[in-house]
Amino acid sequence: MQRSIATVSVSGSLPEKLTAIAAAGFDGVEIFENDLLCYPGSPAEIRQRCDDLGLAITLFQPFRNFEGNPRDQLETHLARARLKFGLMEQLGCDTLLVCSHVSPQSSAERDVQIADLARLAALAEQHGMRVGYEALAWGAHVNHYRQAWDRVREVDSPAMGIVLDSFHVLALGDTLDGLDAIPLEKITFLQLADAPMMQMNTLEWSRHFRCFPGQGELPLVKFATQLTQKGYRGPWSLEIFNDTFRAEPATPTAQDGYRSLLYLEEQTRQALAQANAPDIPEGLFASAALPHYHGVDFIEFSAGADDAPLLDAGLQQLGLAHRGDHRTKAVSLYQNGAVNLIVNREPDSAAAAYHERHGLSMCALALKVGGAPRLLQRAQAFGYAIYPPQAGPNERPIPAVCLPDGGLIYLIEQGGQAGWSQDFHLYDAPPPSDSWQGIDHLAIAIPEGMRQNWVMFLRSVLGFELESMQEMNDPFGIVRSQLAHSPENRVRLPLNISQSRETLIARAVQRYHGAGLQHAAFATRDIFSAVRAARERGMGLLPVPENYYQDLAARFGLEQAFLDELAAHHLLYDRDGQGGELLHAYTQPVADGRFFFELLERRGGYAGYGEANAGVRLTMQQQP
Amino acid sequence: MQRSIATVSVSGSLPEKLTAIAAAGFDGVEIFENDLLCYPGSPAEIRQRCDDLGLAITLFQPFRNFEGNPRDQLETHLARARLKFGLMEQLGCDTLLVCSHVSPQSSAERDVQIADLARLAALAEQHGMRVGYEALAWGAHVNHYRQAWDRVREVDSPAMGIVLDSFHVLALGDTLDGLDAIPLEKITFLQLADAPMMQMNTLEWSRHFRCFPGQGELPLVKFATQLTQKGYRGPWSLEIFNDTFRAEPATPTAQDGYRSLLYLEEQTRQALAQANAPDIPEGLFASAALPHYHGVDFIEFSAGADDAPLLDAGLQQLGLAHRGDHRTKAVSLYQNGAVNLIVNREPDSAAAAYHERHGLSMCALALKVGGAPRLLQRAQAFGYAIYPPQAGPNERPIPAVCLPDGGLIYLIEQGGQAGWSQDFHLYDAPPPSDSWQGIDHLAIAIPEGMRQNWVMFLRSVLGFELESMQEMNDPFGIVRSQLAHSPENRVRLPLNISQSRETLIARAVQRYHGAGLQHAAFATRDIFSAVRAARERGMGLLPVPENYYQDLAARFGLEQAFLDELAAHHLLYDRDGQGGELLHAYTQPVADGRFFFELLERRGGYAGYGEANAGVRLTMQQQP
Repeated sequence: MQRSIATVSVSGSLPEKLTAIAAAGFDGVEIFENDLLCYPGSPAEIRQRCDDLGLAITLFQPFRNFEGNPRDQLETHLARARLKFGLMEQLGCDTLLVCSHVSPQSSAERDVQIADLARLAALAEQHGMRVGYEALAWGAHVNHYRQAWDRVREVDSPAMGIVLDSFHVLALGDTLDGLDAIPLEKITFLQLADAPMMQMNTLEWSRHFRCFPGQGELPLVKFATQLTQKGYRGPWSLEIFNDTFRAEPATPTAQDGYRSLLYLEEQTRQALAQANAPDIPEGLFASAALPHYHGVDFIEFSAGADDAPLLDAGLQQLGLAHRGDHRTKAVSLYQNGAVNLIVNREPDSAAAAYHERHGLSMCALALKVGGAPRLLQRAQAFGYAIYPPQAGPNERPIPAVCLPDGGLIYLIEQGGQAGWSQDFHLYDAPPPSDSWQGIDHLAIAIPEGMRQNWVMFLRSVLGFELESMQEMNDPFGIVRSQLAHSPENRVRLPLNISQSRETLIARAVQRYHGAGLQHAAFATRDIFSAVRAARERGMGLLPVPENYYQDLAARFGLEQAFLDELAAHHLLYDRDGQGGELLHAYTQPVADGRFFFELLERRGGYAGYGEANAGVRLTMQQQP
Repeated sequence: MQRSIATVSVSGSLPEKLTAIAAAGFDGVEIFENDLLCYPGSPAEIRQRCDDLGLAITLFQPFRNFEGNPRDQLETHLARARLKFGLMEQLGCDTLLVCSHVSPQSSAERDVQIADLARLAALAEQHGMRVGYEALAWGAHVNHYRQAWDRVREVDSPAMGIVLDSFHVLALGDTLDGLDAIPLEKITFLQLADAPMMQMNTLEWSRHFRCFPGQGELPLVKFATQLTQKGYRGPWSLEIFNDTFRAEPATPTAQDGYRSLLYLEEQTRQALAQANAPDIPEGLFASAALPHYHGVDFIEFSAGADDAPLLDAGLQQLGLAHRGDHRTKAVSLYQNGAVNLIVNREPDSAAAAYHERHGLSMCALALKVGGAPRLLQRAQAFGYAIYPPQAGPNERPIPAVCLPDGGLIYLIEQGGQAGWSQDFHLYDAPPPSDSWQGIDHLAIAIPEGMRQNWVMFLRSVLGFELESMQEMNDPFGIVRSQLAHSPENRVRLPLNISQSRETLIARAVQRYHGAGLQHAAFATRDIFSAVRAARERGMGLLPVPENYYQDLAARFGLEQAFLDELAAHHLLYDRDGQGGELLHAYTQPVADGRFFFELLERRGGYAGYGEANAGVRLTMQQQP
């Protein structure tokens, strides 16, 4: 497997790009012409640098608008090609991408296009070069790979084949089902790009919103599987135009690019196995199978001596009893029913390091899984750090994988744990009367530039699924929220991103340096009694405007008595199309404004997370 | 004229929105339902607050998805309407916007839709309310106003008319040519919104990219003119969904909204006059005619004692002679041919105030105009500050209008000036041998959130035109550049915006607190001699990669001798479709990295500003 990426996919100067690409693990690189012409050294220097870095130059691109120009310009364009072939010789690259003409003024005559391409192929042959002809999705006359192949077949030169780019094929809703007609040796090169589904101009979509395989919604696995079944064994090369990747540091982007190929290879391997393919390439990446997820076991807060008492007060008011303290560390346990919270004030711990950077924070979550070792293996195989379990005498060792923001996911083997009493002195404090069912979801606030890093982590290592993006109206801008969840939907992590600077999310991200885990929602069996109990303990709840309830009445035709009950308990309400219901309340800010919590009750299989009520919540949280 | 705006158009809580809207000058407001239901007080309190602020509530909106629901749900939806009418009574608003159903599951039967709307109209009549039916551009069955009118005509109730929203009409490429068929009294309400032309899903376009009239590209003037000719004299109401407006402070957004109505009224008045309309409403805004622009007379730098010597050294190296000093102030004059630069170190001046906020900066430009008093009048009429001319004895008084970033545009009446010697001691230093022709263009760096403020200023007060947006590739993100220019193209101001944090532009905007005027380009008659002269004086020029010239050779088929000349002079090159050419060079950073300058020569009517070369320039400026 040669794993390659186009220089345009990452930020910086050409040498910076190459360094980041090589460090991420790639062994091939496409040189994007613009990057070369902005580079003050010679092509031979780039060739040497790539050699030193162990990078083969797999492709030089793009050569645009060649076929079907006015007849009197053909020689000029052939001269242009000659100069580029000369440049490629210096680069040590033998493959040129030629993309289909985008001007409606270019000739629509198939014969003219073929004749021009034949001239180019002949020239390439003279130079010992290969040309791959690519149908751009917005090409004026050639925009499907079948058309590109039609021209290339007629040219019939050993120096000319086609380039297949997953975006150009899949963005038009096309498939590789027409691949049978094309001889394997005529597939000169393969470019891979994913994208979110968007209804917009294809050129704009391609130039700004491509992303790595696994970060978008195109059927990349089927695409790669069909090509592999066909026998394609050439480079898999990423070509990603993405505004965020252009702006973020090259190193993490290149790392994610490499991971995206591994992830696509793994899925392709599975698809091939499922189809009983006779020949699965050995080079295709394989890792351990995904574990099963059984829910969130606990969440951990990083606290200091100053802020721990504030958090303690808030948690107890909410209904979490201080149930115990760690036998050897400054770590406390809070519980209500199946909900466990850890507050870690231990110096020189991972939590302390997190606290130093982010202040009082949720710094870790613990997942109950079946197959923790497999998950650790996956994390390492995809190049993510794992946290070495450093258990003291008689302590439970808990392994963890590192989140993109430096937080941790602990892995608790389902059925294997020894219980809290092994590590903690447990008190005899009676558990609160309102027994909570568990941690329903954990919202994660993410800086815009890191969204794709989180997505890559959640998809590749954890195998989580992503729902479609929701928009929430903060009174000071738009928040985009996307639910990531385990396949069985037992672990739910809404990812919240805001490009605006003044939204609640954006201010938290800025204030706490990339906020990470931000808000925890606890599931209750009886939300009314849970709310009453919390209020009796002195927990303030976010007020809800009377106007909101009047609108609920209009929208859902609710009974006045039920509305009065909701209002009396500060409860928000949502109902889905299948009659599933959510009743939920938010606390006033806890610990000097750092957190808020949510208590909720799901009825009848409601699967959302109350996103319809985010606007009223965000407005009330920011009352002047 | 009743000037109105929907609360959704600005940021903040409902009371904050209303305050900003009233302060901007509006006398009407549409209450967007979501804003009301997130407000913790009663509708009657909002009514009172609007009364206190002098705002009439012109519309309550939206009432969605009513017509054509399943038959057994009709009564539920009528009950929903009844609740909303009750709410509107408390608000003191008698007009409800009902927008067409967006669900494909709703009935496509015209008769069913009409029957449902008739029930709603009857209910409205009972409540003494009016309903305006609006065809959403993405309505499932009703998406053109002609269809909405078809239903409303059949309903035939005095309580029901149609709402015309410019976006919904114009986004589909429709016109108001069908207005003849609709009686005037059946136009219940008018909503106005502009938008840039974009090829994307109409719903997304509408929800995120609407802007105020004059900020976009829709034919709003024709739209408003046709309605006015028809006899419409009801409110003109802005309904703008815009991600930036949602995120920026409410006050400047509301001010721009008010200005946009004045600007649209002025243009509508002109269009009516041009069409010899018999009845031009008196209330339509009118201001002084636009002046004529004859170019940029000088630019002014704000400097302090520390940084002035650095700037002085850079200017002299570039080729600007220190030609004089102000008779009474710490202000110096630099000249080369028709290019004049002022460096202002005077304490307690406007320049000093600008310096305090932005550091060493270009703080003002002076335009040569025919009709300066008219421009001052326009600025004031549109609610912009003007700078009081405070001339000392024997000094030229120079009036100015304030730019959105606090900078100034001085106005020099063409033919009326007394020359520099009136205010300056001029030295006998010989002018530099290379005589420059003038200030070709001035690039303005703008924080993303302020782009629309600049556009409104440039369009409304100055009457400048805007070219389409260009994209430039900074190695650390995308820069969007839009050329604003005077109608005769004698004053050119490229506006540069970057959403990415690490581009050259974004870093300047951040470092200098909204950078404003950033980069000046000087036109020369002979770029080769101008460059040689600058280098002889010790000015360093930005290096240009050899690879760039090789690409020029391939793209334009240039002669090697000419390429060598370009390379020897560090010149970039561009050619347009008509054979017009640009030759231009950039300086190394001047004054400790604060500025760079550009020398250029236009040949054969080249009209751009070298945007094709921005990528190589930005990369070379950020060489590690």
